[in-house]
Amino acid sequence: MATKAIQEYYPDHLNQCHGCGVLNPEGLGIRSYWRGGLAVCTFTPQPFHLGPPGFVYGGLIASLIDCHANATASGAAHAAAGKELGDGMLPRFVTASLHVDYLRPTPIAGPIELVGTIKKTTGKKSVVEVTLSVDGTLCARGEVVSVLAPASL
Amino acid sequence: MATKAIQEYYPDHLNQCHGCGVLNPEGLGIRSYWRGGLAVCTFTPQPFHLGPPGFVYGGLIASLIDCHANATASGAAHAAAGKELGDGMLPRFVTASLHVDYLRPTPIAGPIELVGTIKKTTGKKSVVEVTLSVDGTLCARGEVVSVLAPASL
Repeated sequence: MATKAIQEYYPDHLNQCHGCGVLNPEGLGIRSYWRGGLAVCTFTPQPFHLGPPGFVYGGLIASLIDCHANATASGAAHAAAGKELGDGMLPRFVTASLHVDYLRPTPIAGPIELVGTIKKTTGKKSVVEVTLSVDGTLCARGEVVSVLAPASL
Repeated sequence: MATKAIQEYYPDHLNQCHGCGVLNPEGLGIRSYWRGGLAVCTFTPQPFHLGPPGFVYGGLIASLIDCHANATASGAAHAAAGKELGDGMLPRFVTASLHVDYLRPTPIAGPIELVGTIKKTTGKKSVVEVTLSVDGTLCARGEVVSVLAPASL
């Protein structure tokens, strides 16, 4: 089972993302782990990530779903090419569209658990479903269209 | 023309949001202004809000659209009740769902300009459309379902 995060294998020039970039020391530090067919992420919010009293603000939830979905697409594309983590760089995916349903307030105590799965893919474009839960209770569900980063980035 | 932001009229106990809460000194400080039928917001990203080189990360874009949409719903509900800004607290809206289409990369140099308009509303539930532009170029479009915050929050 891979112990290094998917983001640790992103190309350096696309690894400064505030959400999940390994090379952004001021970022959120979102890390996603490939678990054979899906990707998981655990994130503990800071007290200042507050939305309503006791709950996480919606922008953090969207950020977690966004970055984790792109990592899921990356891990899945790498696996589909028959490669293991550590076998070269991973392809970097970026967001074409993001949809989040906020099902109930997300407790700020966390930890927040995310699971990303591929709903469908063409290889260069994937529809990724992400569930976001705290203590086993589903708080939000996301659907992200992730596309292979263009060479122009 | 109102010079104070919509968020300055939110009830204190719902004004600590990391995105737009006046009472969250560590937050993003998103501020929305009511301009008679629509709401506007200008936001200049910090260098560490990077996504791909030269461009803003998607989570910040989602956060801006999210908070600004709820402010738009709030301002519109207040106006629909025949009230001006400063005439009591504004009703606080929260997010039921968020959809963002990332049309092109958003330059991090900014400033980012957002315009929120009401697409439809029942009073307690509004569908808000938000455009996000830099230097007149549309970079993202959002649609948010904003609902009146329940008394339980």
